[in-house]
Amino acid sequence: MSAPFRHVAVIGLGLLGSSILRAVGELLPEVETSGWDASFDVRERARVIALAPAIPDLAAEAVRGADLVILCVPVGAMGEAARTIAPGLDPKALVSDVGSSKASVAKALAEALPGQSVIPAHPVAGTEHSGPDSGFASLFRNRWCIMTPPENADEALVAKLAAFWEALGARVERMTAGHHDLVLAVTSHLPHLIAYTIVGTASDLEDVTESEVIKYSAGGFRDFTRIAASDPTMWRDVFLSNKDAVLEMLQRFSEDLTALQRAIRWDDGEKLFDLFTRTRAIRRSIIEEGQDDARADFGRADHNGAKA
Amino acid sequence: MSAPFRHVAVIGLGLLGSSILRAVGELLPEVETSGWDASFDVRERARVIALAPAIPDLAAEAVRGADLVILCVPVGAMGEAARTIAPGLDPKALVSDVGSSKASVAKALAEALPGQSVIPAHPVAGTEHSGPDSGFASLFRNRWCIMTPPENADEALVAKLAAFWEALGARVERMTAGHHDLVLAVTSHLPHLIAYTIVGTASDLEDVTESEVIKYSAGGFRDFTRIAASDPTMWRDVFLSNKDAVLEMLQRFSEDLTALQRAIRWDDGEKLFDLFTRTRAIRRSIIEEGQDDARADFGRADHNGAKA
Repeated sequence: MSAPFRHVAVIGLGLLGSSILRAVGELLPEVETSGWDASFDVRERARVIALAPAIPDLAAEAVRGADLVILCVPVGAMGEAARTIAPGLDPKALVSDVGSSKASVAKALAEALPGQSVIPAHPVAGTEHSGPDSGFASLFRNRWCIMTPPENADEALVAKLAAFWEALGARVERMTAGHHDLVLAVTSHLPHLIAYTIVGTASDLEDVTESEVIKYSAGGFRDFTRIAASDPTMWRDVFLSNKDAVLEMLQRFSEDLTALQRAIRWDDGEKLFDLFTRTRAIRRSIIEEGQDDARADFGRADHNGAKA
Repeated sequence: MSAPFRHVAVIGLGLLGSSILRAVGELLPEVETSGWDASFDVRERARVIALAPAIPDLAAEAVRGADLVILCVPVGAMGEAARTIAPGLDPKALVSDVGSSKASVAKALAEALPGQSVIPAHPVAGTEHSGPDSGFASLFRNRWCIMTPPENADEALVAKLAAFWEALGARVERMTAGHHDLVLAVTSHLPHLIAYTIVGTASDLEDVTESEVIKYSAGGFRDFTRIAASDPTMWRDVFLSNKDAVLEMLQRFSEDLTALQRAIRWDDGEKLFDLFTRTRAIRRSIIEEGQDDARADFGRADHNGAKA
C-alpha cells in the first residue's frame, strides 16, 4: 500500500505533534515531513532531536508543498494557527487537527481557511507529559481516532485521512462534531475537571498538611494527580470550547454524587454496594476492548522498583 | 536483628492478608505463620497456593500460639472477626489490623476483646484486585504504615509492631485514629467515592452508549475505572465507618467543583489556568517522595504491548 499522503506538515510540536512526526518517521518513512511551533525554544529543541528534516522559522514555509497539514495546538489557538499557515498553504492540501473538542475547532478552521478542505479529527491518546521530548511513535497504536468530517466533505479525502491514522496504528471512527463533544465530555473532559478539582481541594485543607497528602497518596489520590498534571493551557481551552457538554455532564455527576452523599449519611449500605458492584463490570470491558492494562495498579512500579 | 514476633496469625486472606503472609515468608522466614478466612473456598485456595503452613477450619485454632494476630477483613467485619478468634487467643498476644478507617475499628476491637492489647494500624497500600491470589510480597515496600495506638498502649508493643512493618519494607508513622480518618478521607476515601460516582454517571447516559464510553476511555476515564473496580464490600464499610470525615471532605470538594463550574460558565480562563498550574506541583512532590511512578501514564502498556 502506498502512503495516503506525500508530505505531512505538523504545526505545534508538543506531545501529539512530536508523536505524529515520530510515528510517520517509523511507519511511513517514504512520507516527507516538516514541522513548526510558535515557540522559538520548541523549534530549536525539535531541530536538535530531529523531529523532522525541515523545521523552518516561518509557519507558512513549514506547510509549503504539504498535502496534509495537521494542527496540534491547544484548541483555543487553532484559528490563529490556521491564519498563520494560510499564506503558504497549497489550495488542494487537506487541513486536519488533533483537538479534544471538535465543534468549536471546525468553526474556527472554516472561518480562518475559507475554501480549504478541512476534516477535523481527534486521536484519543496522550499522557500527562507535554513538550517535544514527550512524544513517542507508538502513542496511537490501538487507540481510537475520531474523525468529524463536515457534511459536504470530499469522501476520497476522508478515506485518505482514515488510512493515514490507520497506518499510525489507530482505529478510526466517524461521528458528528456535536456527538464527539458529548462523548468526550464524559470520557475525558469531566474526568480531567474532577481530577483537577480534588487535587486542589486536597491542597487547600487546614487540618491535613500537604506533606500528609503526599505521603499517603498511594491510597488512591495519586492516580488523580497524574491526570491533574496535564498541560494547563490545553485543558483551559478544552473546558471553554466544550462548555455546554461539560456543564451538562458536570450536572449529572453532581446529582449522582449528591445521591451517594445521602446514602452515606443515612447508612444505606445496599445502595453503595450495588453501585460498587456495577462499576467493576465497566473496568473488565475496558480491558477486554484493549483500552487499558489488565495488570494490578496499571503494572506500575514504585520508586524502589517494587511491583506495587 | 531477630524478628519482632515469633508467630503471626492472619485473619482474612484477601489482597492484604495474603500479601502479609507472602512478605513474612520472604522477609522473615524464621517467623511461624498461620491463616484463616471466613470463606471455605478462600481457605481451600489458600492451602493450594500454600499461603501459610497452617490454615485450619476454625478461627480460634488459627490464632492459637500466635503473639501477633492481624485482622485483614472489611472494617465492618472487624468486631465479628475479633469475637470469632477470642476463644483461641493468647491473653498476651497483640491484636492489630489493616483497616482503612481507624476510630471505628479501635472501638469495635476494644469492645470485642476487653483486656487484650490492641494496636490498630493501616498500611496505605493496595491494588484494585482482591482475593488470595492477588497478594504479593512487595506490596508494602516504600509504602507508609500508619499506626494509631490508643493512649494507654504498651510502648514496647508499639515499637515491636513498628519493627514488624519496617521488616516488611514499610515506613511507619504514628497519629491518632481521628487524625488518620481525616487524612485518609482525602487521600483515599474521597478519591474512591468520586471514581465510583463518575463510572456510574458514565454508564447511565442516554445520548452516549456504554460501548462509546469504553472505546474512548483512554481520554482519562479509564484511570477512574481502576479505582472503581476495588472490592465493593470493603469500600461500602469504609464509607459507613468513616462517615463524618468523608462527608466533610465531600462538602469541600463539592464547593470547589461548583466554583470551577461557575468559572467555565463565565469563561474565566484565568481561574482555570491558575488551578491547573498549581496541581502540577503536587504530582512532582508525590514522585519525589517515591509514592508514584514517574513514567508517562504510570508506564502502563496497552493491549498490544505498546508503550502508551
